[in-house]
Formats: sequence, structure tokens, C-alpha cells
Amino acid sequence: MVSFAQVAPIVSALKWNDEGLIPAIVQDAENGDVLMMAWMDEAAVRDTLATGQTHFYSRSRRCHWHKGATSGHVQHVESIWLDCDGDVILIKARQIGGACHEGYRSCFFRRAGQSGEFERAGEPVFDAAKVYGAAGGAGSGSTENLKEPNHA
Amino acid sequence: MVSFAQVAPIVSALKWNDEGLIPAIVQDAENGDVLMMAWMDEAAVRDTLATGQTHFYSRSRRCHWHKGATSGHVQHVESIWLDCDGDVILIKARQIGGACHEGYRSCFFRRAGQSGEFERAGEPVFDAAKVYGAAGGAGSGSTENLKEPNHA
Repeated sequence: MVSFAQVAPIVSALKWNDEGLIPAIVQDAENGDVLMMAWMDEAAVRDTLATGQTHFYSRSRRCHWHKGATSGHVQHVESIWLDCDGDVILIKARQIGGACHEGYRSCFFRRAGQSGEFERAGEPVFDAAKVYGAAGGAGSGSTENLKEPNHA
Repeated sequence: MVSFAQVAPIVSALKWNDEGLIPAIVQDAENGDVLMMAWMDEAAVRDTLATGQTHFYSRSRRCHWHKGATSGHVQHVESIWLDCDGDVILIKARQIGGACHEGYRSCFFRRAGQSGEFERAGEPVFDAAKVYGAAGGAGSGSTENLKEPNHA
């Protein structure tokens, strides 16, 4: 897990959008796969820095979520990068289980095929119905389940 | 370069934000590095699909830009991926030169250090002042130069 002597310089370097948010790309520190993109507000950035695990802000539900709080599929932060404009964060993280609420390692599991249709590539790494509840992504009562589909 | 028999299925699968835009992450197809994140509107997606090179929409300048139009540092699309929510695109591309208008291969060239300050990691791969003009990123008259710093 990363640790920082001071959080303030990181927070002050970030450029927030009109909603006070910044997009955060999470990349698998082990194999380089892009796992997901979600949004952070300042509190989510601070929680991520304080705990060494990713936290985000759900725009649709207007609340914070700790990635993996329900599923155990947390993301251990290994390094934090900022783009040239200062308005996008890249987090390299060690992903436990899978990042995607549909059971895949990465949320980007659909690839545009020759026909122009998006096709599933690869297989799920866990059973989403078991992990998030029998109702799957449609409101099982799992806090994380309800939040993760709205991560962007 | 990728080619698609039909563009309509790809375009119709995308979920646009209130501004009619979708974030597009570009990943280096050779080494997996995340190169940049920028925004696309429908026209940019169509231009990207039609030409096999990335096109974006600049929110700050309210105009389209063809990545590499000035610098020659185009991105040849190898594959297009969509996340589970359908609202973020991942493009794996073969990057010519560097993606960043500051001369780096990736726009994510600053890493948060132990002190909490973002520090430059690695070296530029081209001379931004030469490629974009002597004024660097501060308005040299290069169309791309003026647009690229505003890519997010």
C-alpha cells in the first residue's frame, strides 16, 4: 500500500470539474489492463489516500462508495498519476477478485467486432449473483451492488 | 487499422452524457500504458471509426480535433472496448511519437511521490517546442497545440 507524508499537495494539484469531481482511471498494476473509470470528489481522494484503497463518488446516487465494501473486491493502490492538464487521475492498483459488478476482472469486457456489435471477450472471474445477491445488478439490497453499476 | 462493416451498432451502444459526450481512454497497444483520456461526441466516434485514427471533441474550445493532425503523432486504432455501463470507451491504439503535448509518450507522466508532490517520472520522447512551435503550449498558432492541452 502506498502512503504519503502529506495529502494536501496531492489534493491541491487536482483540477475538479464544475461538479467538484475528477475522473479516475484504475489500471491493474499486475498486467496493465484498464479495469474501470469512475469519479472522485475531494472526500473520495482523501479516503483513497488515507486507506490505500479506492473510494469513489457516485454521481447518479450522490453518495460515496468504497470499492469492494460488499464484495471484498477492493483495489489496493500502488501508485497515483496525474495527467498533463491535471484533470484526470490514473491509479495503478492491485485488484482483489474482479473490478466489474458483472463478474469480470475489468469493466471493459466488451469489444467492438467486425460487425460493429460489441461482443463479450473473456469470461467472468466470479459469480456476480452470488457475490452481490440473487437479484444481480437489479437491486438486491447490497449497498455496493446498487452503487457499482452507477460508477461512471 | 481496424475496420467495421457497420458503424451504427457501435454508435447506438454508447451512452452519452448530458453534453452528448463520452470519455475515451486511449491505451498503448504495444505496452499497455494509459496514454490519455479525452472526450468524443458522435461525430468524433464516427470519424475515428471511418479513419482508424482517433478524433476527439474539445469541450473548452467546442471543436473537433484529429489527434496528431499537426504533430503527426496520430493514434492508429487497434481495438475499441466499452465498459459495463456503456458510458466509457477504451481504445487500444498504436501511438506514433508521443500522446502528450508536453512531449511525453503518455499524458500521465507525473506520479505522486512520498512527499505528496507530483513528480515527473521518465523523460519526454520529443521536443514539444519544436513540434508545436517555439511558444510551446502557450499559443504558438498550431491548431493542434491550442487544442491538445484542453483535451479533457
